[in-house]
Amino acid sequence: MLKSITRLVFGVLCWTALAAAHDREWLPLPAAPPEPADNPTTPGKVALGKALFFDPRFSPGGATSCNTCHDLMNGGADDRPLPPQQAPARNAPTVWNAAFHTLQRWDGRATSLEEQTRIALTDRAEMALPGTTVMLQRLRAIPGYRALFAAAFAGKAPVTIDNAVKALAAYERTLVTPDAPYDRYVKGEKRALSDEQIRGMETFAAIGCVKCHAGPTFDGATLSNGRGLLMKSPTYARAKVVAKYRLLKDRGRFELTKHPGDDHLWRVPTLRNLLYTAPYFHNGAVPTLEEAVRVMAKTELDQNLVDSDVNAIVAFLGALSGGFPEQTLPRLPPGTGMLPR
Amino acid sequence: MLKSITRLVFGVLCWTALAAAHDREWLPLPAAPPEPADNPTTPGKVALGKALFFDPRFSPGGATSCNTCHDLMNGGADDRPLPPQQAPARNAPTVWNAAFHTLQRWDGRATSLEEQTRIALTDRAEMALPGTTVMLQRLRAIPGYRALFAAAFAGKAPVTIDNAVKALAAYERTLVTPDAPYDRYVKGEKRALSDEQIRGMETFAAIGCVKCHAGPTFDGATLSNGRGLLMKSPTYARAKVVAKYRLLKDRGRFELTKHPGDDHLWRVPTLRNLLYTAPYFHNGAVPTLEEAVRVMAKTELDQNLVDSDVNAIVAFLGALSGGFPEQTLPRLPPGTGMLPR
Repeated sequence: MLKSITRLVFGVLCWTALAAAHDREWLPLPAAPPEPADNPTTPGKVALGKALFFDPRFSPGGATSCNTCHDLMNGGADDRPLPPQQAPARNAPTVWNAAFHTLQRWDGRATSLEEQTRIALTDRAEMALPGTTVMLQRLRAIPGYRALFAAAFAGKAPVTIDNAVKALAAYERTLVTPDAPYDRYVKGEKRALSDEQIRGMETFAAIGCVKCHAGPTFDGATLSNGRGLLMKSPTYARAKVVAKYRLLKDRGRFELTKHPGDDHLWRVPTLRNLLYTAPYFHNGAVPTLEEAVRVMAKTELDQNLVDSDVNAIVAFLGALSGGFPEQTLPRLPPGTGMLPR
Repeated sequence: MLKSITRLVFGVLCWTALAAAHDREWLPLPAAPPEPADNPTTPGKVALGKALFFDPRFSPGGATSCNTCHDLMNGGADDRPLPPQQAPARNAPTVWNAAFHTLQRWDGRATSLEEQTRIALTDRAEMALPGTTVMLQRLRAIPGYRALFAAAFAGKAPVTIDNAVKALAAYERTLVTPDAPYDRYVKGEKRALSDEQIRGMETFAAIGCVKCHAGPTFDGATLSNGRGLLMKSPTYARAKVVAKYRLLKDRGRFELTKHPGDDHLWRVPTLRNLLYTAPYFHNGAVPTLEEAVRVMAKTELDQNLVDSDVNAIVAFLGALSGGFPEQTLPRLPPGTGMLPR
């Protein structure tokens, strides 16, 4: 009974948020994301988090790092439809601008970068180490990490999973792209977008994409409880493309909670940097942005778009891509020739 | 008969080279390596080669790049004893300063970076694509590579394996560490080395390590025919450590040529950046630098070193490590959501 009320309230909140989103002005990405009071971003944490992000020694074979699937050079994701190890396997989302999301992961199970990073580090379906004990042993077996942790955190024994999580989250808060053509446009640089991109922006709003894909990262409105938006998808499940791209196979948040009300509920994904993150959708089944736009229009808005509208929207989505700040490669602390197992 | 004479001449040349090496002064790393007349280094080639080096989309699963095993952040190698796919499997050598080597690969089968890179790209035991046709299809399926190839090479159809090889070699020629403490010391900065490192340097020469590990990269003398040095190892094959570390199992160059005279013949590996490239030896069986020094002294010089000599030599080898120039991450051209197979 309580659950039903919760769901009802949630539904009303969604609706209110959607209505608000529709009227909302176009927002640029802020230069820096919010950070939690208990994990302010510091240069020491960022340096440590960057090394951890690129370090492949926390995977069983010693060749997979965060950056393998969330490749900063490749839009913060990879070109693979699905990663090999997860269950349920889902397309790797970009890490760029993840710091702005109020829900993390396709099923929205994490609500902060810290929560998300903890899952990534400790869930066997991700880095695939048998547990945090082995991860800690590996961290401690690389002498150079002691100095990096000590520079980032107070305390006598700073090499902990908690601190690794905080450092990774702090580093990820630096991975933002506030300088895409769209951002420059809405901040006043009127020539930052082409005429077709502007027409695409208008079409994007007019046909209703913006109902869900609102806000500076286009990942949905933030609800009044501070959480992000989960939406049912596909809404029009009988569309032929639903079968073609197997969009009903993975039941989304239901796979996690087993609540019928969560069936095919998904976090609204960001639309930033889509030029760099093909293939698309939770199962990576759709290879091109043109097709992704068509499929979304059909399955969520029951619309068959004409080519010129598809092209204009794709052009607009291109304007949400890029502006990556240059990254230097971190120097990983040298190992000692053996990874604890 | 001709082969016997060739081998005799080769032996004499080796001996002459060794004698010369022993008398040779300590050489710093030149600021830039030699480059072949038909592949001068240009900014366009370097930019293309860098993207290719970091791009994982030329492996079957789309997650393995050159940088996976030759990790620039991790001393140009990885921490794994052996890569998973090769036959015979051998420890990934560092790519840093490879441009100075006159022999490439553990068995010396390549004599230029171009030759080496071609093997890496096309040998199924390396990137493991079924052939160059698929590699070319993948290159051509990523539209952004067209512009990178066109900026680097003349011609109407510049996207070729030949040009990819040249670009990768050109990029690798930028991966040099001419600023290690040893280099600064031999160029006159007398305080660049500690007293123990200087003692280690003297011990290294006195006990005979330098007979093979000569020259600016310590990978052996260059013979008068311009080729690098191949040496038999282990020389003292009855030492207990030979069995312990399985040093006779892989027969080195013999595995390639099947010539009895090539049995257990190996390229002399560089000693630069050893602090970053544990574990050691062709099979990655030796985890620490201390043990590697002991094993080499025993198996090649029949000497049992005392701890103080081991420590001094290790300190000296530390002085051959580092001086890595900062690297920025390249931006990989976006894909189109499907890798040709």
